[in-house]
Amino acid sequence: MDSPDFRAILERIAEEIERTPGRGRPADYIPALAARDPRHFGMAVAEPDGTVYGVGDWREPFSTQSITKVFTLALDLAREGDALWEHVGREPSGNPFNSLVQLEYENGIPRNPFINAGALVVTDRLHTRTGDAAGTLLSFLRTESGNPGLDFDPQIAASESAHGDRNAALAHFMASYGNIDNPVPVLLDQYFRQCSLTASCADLALATAFLARHGLRADGTRLLTRSQAKQVNAVMLTCGTYDAAGDFAYRVGLPGKSGVGGGIIAVVPGRCTLCVWSPGLDERGNSVAGVAALDRFTTLTGLSIF
Amino acid sequence: MDSPDFRAILERIAEEIERTPGRGRPADYIPALAARDPRHFGMAVAEPDGTVYGVGDWREPFSTQSITKVFTLALDLAREGDALWEHVGREPSGNPFNSLVQLEYENGIPRNPFINAGALVVTDRLHTRTGDAAGTLLSFLRTESGNPGLDFDPQIAASESAHGDRNAALAHFMASYGNIDNPVPVLLDQYFRQCSLTASCADLALATAFLARHGLRADGTRLLTRSQAKQVNAVMLTCGTYDAAGDFAYRVGLPGKSGVGGGIIAVVPGRCTLCVWSPGLDERGNSVAGVAALDRFTTLTGLSIF
Amino acid sequence: MDSPDFRAILERIAEEIERTPGRGRPADYIPALAARDPRHFGMAVAEPDGTVYGVGDWREPFSTQSITKVFTLALDLAREGDALWEHVGREPSGNPFNSLVQLEYENGIPRNPFINAGALVVTDRLHTRTGDAAGTLLSFLRTESGNPGLDFDPQIAASESAHGDRNAALAHFMASYGNIDNPVPVLLDQYFRQCSLTASCADLALATAFLARHGLRADGTRLLTRSQAKQVNAVMLTCGTYDAAGDFAYRVGLPGKSGVGGGIIAVVPGRCTLCVWSPGLDERGNSVAGVAALDRFTTLTGLSIF
Amino acid sequence: MDSPDFRAILERIAEEIERTPGRGRPADYIPALAARDPRHFGMAVAEPDGTVYGVGDWREPFSTQSITKVFTLALDLAREGDALWEHVGREPSGNPFNSLVQLEYENGIPRNPFINAGALVVTDRLHTRTGDAAGTLLSFLRTESGNPGLDFDPQIAASESAHGDRNAALAHFMASYGNIDNPVPVLLDQYFRQCSLTASCADLALATAFLARHGLRADGTRLLTRSQAKQVNAVMLTCGTYDAAGDFAYRVGLPGKSGVGGGIIAVVPGRCTLCVWSPGLDERGNSVAGVAALDRFTTLTGLSIF
Repeated sequence: MDSPDFRAILERIAEEIERTPGRGRPADYIPALAARDPRHFGMAVAEPDGTVYGVGDWREPFSTQSITKVFTLALDLAREGDALWEHVGREPSGNPFNSLVQLEYENGIPRNPFINAGALVVTDRLHTRTGDAAGTLLSFLRTESGNPGLDFDPQIAASESAHGDRNAALAHFMASYGNIDNPVPVLLDQYFRQCSLTASCADLALATAFLARHGLRADGTRLLTRSQAKQVNAVMLTCGTYDAAGDFAYRVGLPGKSGVGGGIIAVVPGRCTLCVWSPGLDERGNSVAGVAALDRFTTLTGLSIF
Repeated sequence: MDSPDFRAILERIAEEIERTPGRGRPADYIPALAARDPRHFGMAVAEPDGTVYGVGDWREPFSTQSITKVFTLALDLAREGDALWEHVGREPSGNPFNSLVQLEYENGIPRNPFINAGALVVTDRLHTRTGDAAGTLLSFLRTESGNPGLDFDPQIAASESAHGDRNAALAHFMASYGNIDNPVPVLLDQYFRQCSLTASCADLALATAFLARHGLRADGTRLLTRSQAKQVNAVMLTCGTYDAAGDFAYRVGLPGKSGVGGGIIAVVPGRCTLCVWSPGLDERGNSVAGVAALDRFTTLTGLSIF
Repeated sequence: MDSPDFRAILERIAEEIERTPGRGRPADYIPALAARDPRHFGMAVAEPDGTVYGVGDWREPFSTQSITKVFTLALDLAREGDALWEHVGREPSGNPFNSLVQLEYENGIPRNPFINAGALVVTDRLHTRTGDAAGTLLSFLRTESGNPGLDFDPQIAASESAHGDRNAALAHFMASYGNIDNPVPVLLDQYFRQCSLTASCADLALATAFLARHGLRADGTRLLTRSQAKQVNAVMLTCGTYDAAGDFAYRVGLPGKSGVGGGIIAVVPGRCTLCVWSPGLDERGNSVAGVAALDRFTTLTGLSIF
Repeated sequence: MDSPDFRAILERIAEEIERTPGRGRPADYIPALAARDPRHFGMAVAEPDGTVYGVGDWREPFSTQSITKVFTLALDLAREGDALWEHVGREPSGNPFNSLVQLEYENGIPRNPFINAGALVVTDRLHTRTGDAAGTLLSFLRTESGNPGLDFDPQIAASESAHGDRNAALAHFMASYGNIDNPVPVLLDQYFRQCSLTASCADLALATAFLARHGLRADGTRLLTRSQAKQVNAVMLTCGTYDAAGDFAYRVGLPGKSGVGGGIIAVVPGRCTLCVWSPGLDERGNSVAGVAALDRFTTLTGLSIF
């Protein structure tokens, strides 16, 4: 099967997005996110061999936020395998309102690794296994993206921490069920640092490519088994976009993971990975222009999994 | 891309299932389901051109139950298009416990068309549009399967009705929000008849094939647009197996829909459709041997969407 | 202990209420309630010997609605005693939002006899024991009030039935747990008739007096044991005013039961019973002027139980 | 109205309790509570003039736990008055399951001052007003009980803190809604110290007497207005015994507050206060022998408020 002409398709999408009014509003709970101009738009496609195409602000660093949850999941799954699933589920979580009641109803086991409670558990476990969850993540991302300058943003991490009462509540609540190993302040420090990672569309499309390569890293060594890579894609599809996972599957039809910084990564298994960024969000926390661009991408290329 | 040798693969799966102990327990809320022997196992694969392969009890009729929700959805979507989504969502529902509270929280709009509340809404709308929801469904299934003998089972419909208080509660509750058009007793009669449809794996694999043909019926006419067919597949993947949608995506990696009669249909878009049947269920209401067989199928053929 | 001068106190309260602006809004879900003028105000006090004092519209009939739940409870408790409490709890229900989830969480056992679900259970049980729950209620109220003209309002009962989907949902839901004996349509007919009872403040203050007489009816025969009468008062205090029971206890400090017709009955054990009526409701469904008048009554007389 | 012969009544109750098998089980989440012998039983009655009667282990110190929530509430209400009610409600909370979901549903405002979330808010506010919530409480209790030896138990406070993840979760969660003023660790330290107070039935019956004196302290100065004292009694009645408030009102018929150390205080407004202690708890966290003794007390004396 020939590859589509990704360069031409990206140009066409960028033009269409340019002409489309309405970009949503940047997240405003911390200043660094609120300050981004919603007119930013960047998009990158990486092929499994490391070729990368881009358009617009595709080399501009932005705050990755929840996108890092995918990498933390993969890094822990690579280390502990299926034992992870005794501590976090892999079912969609229903709406945000339920996060706490479900946690209570299910005895401190979060529904999936991509809601905050679940990501806290995964970070906790990775930290126990490595002694440095955030450092493990950073090292992996620098290598896979080929960008040694990738780093956390201490100011954003501090802002997250200052607004971190809800995450602290989740962590203590799960600790009361014995589902957290590390002291809560240690865990939160690790977690907020991960959220603060700054990277570009190019960086993230490349760093995600192991999921299009069925688990192989850029250097050809194996991070995940073929089956595990498929499983991470499945969890992204069913749980990757907050309470809009069904809608995202319906419109875009690709495994994806969004962050409140306005970025979204997506995977066409075996074919390519994508990262799109535009800071304006819809009411469910996903980038307005980002979802629209991915929707156009699957329509123009026919690359949906469905 | 060449097709796998479906016949050989089905034989191999049947042998493996045969050797595997533990089949779960049949649903026991109505006698007709409880009476089925959990050792039954049948599986069929249909190619888009109508070729069908099978193994075991693949020609034995069984109670389809919730599997019909897929066809009712497609038949209504074909008629009213996106307007349907103002009356039912397309997001996973979280766990069973939430069914009623979510309905209350979201003002009588069910989360998706495959939970009972959502299927009641879809049936109600199809009935308003056609004057005979159950008849429209039956006619469609007879034509697509090429089996004019397909029919509802009045005894099962009567049993469902006798145990129908919870569905009656859901229907009245949604009616209190103005989300049901027909009188509740009329709606319940239509709904319980649909649940009572009896069909075989061969029938259902063929009847589902329009989803592998991107919306085209057996005679080449179009039921759904390409985009709508993709959307039905997406809803099946995220919502098709009760509270195990994430787990099913993780293990099987195909859009699927199960019923408490022990049947499961699944779709490999563009390639084939499957139906597997074995009456023993796991604790979330999905056929134990059925899920295992589909898991083996995607492993042996590599036909997962991920 | 001398009785306060009830006549003078009622006159004073009526004058104060007259001068107070803001009466809330009548219930508007059925026309007969919406049509009542919120400027109506009546109040009656009955002494255990049957002496009754009143002010304002104290002889004007109004729709009693949920107030009848107290009498149905007493009539069933008199017949089956503590066995009733296996089918309905006696704990406050938290807020309205929880009604359905609690019912699900607690396997179809409603929290108390004064939420709709609980009143449906009590009516169902009284109907099973008497063959005519509504008739039993009516007969009791006519005798205790000394008003043989008391009756149900068929037009209001029909309106309730036409807006009865939520109560139908509750009844079917509890039936699915085996907690309803009679066919749901029969039960709903009994229930809606009770809700439609029309009576005046004078009627209701007199009919409630058995609770001030520690269980004795007007003719000196015993309906409830002393202990049961105390128990009904306790349930009224903790559960009698929807989600405002705590606030009502805090402000008024008497066992009371309100209805969305704007009436409230209250009990000063051993001393007197009260009924106040004004159609305008607050956002929690209790009469604005009614609560204010009872608040003034306990302040002026010192007759709070606390 | 003559007082009953409290001494004789207490003796009789103690004898009956002695003969009754089944005492429940002590709380076991911290060692200091688990170690208490469930055969302990003590009971004290204090008259408004400071006369105190007792039986059994009425002078034995025990861990007061949640009983101190009544005093903290009174001490804060005395300082800030009705403004407190903008930060905590006064409605019963439904069942324990709801604690977190209600907090979320109601935007971080706990239902009442006697659930843990509400007590944290009251402690937080008292600490802001006094600079030393625990010290203010201790000073008050020493004075009212006439026992300068009353003190916190540092070992119990440390145990509470070591098992404090759920309370930490509640505090952080409310902080995320802006409903906590002090840093969470400071607040928790204050809170756990209060829970660790050790006192006897005699101490607590005397310390509670301001609620029987309509707000007057032992020295005749006023802590609460008459109206506020009535209000605290009302909140105790509707919310004082966890999820058994309705049952307690039904059986005992007095405002009361229990603690998981096995103590219960109760008030007969204008007449007397009681404290009973026995470490064995029922499944809802209330002392089995304690509730039984209070039930007998109101039956023998007729002193119920209903």
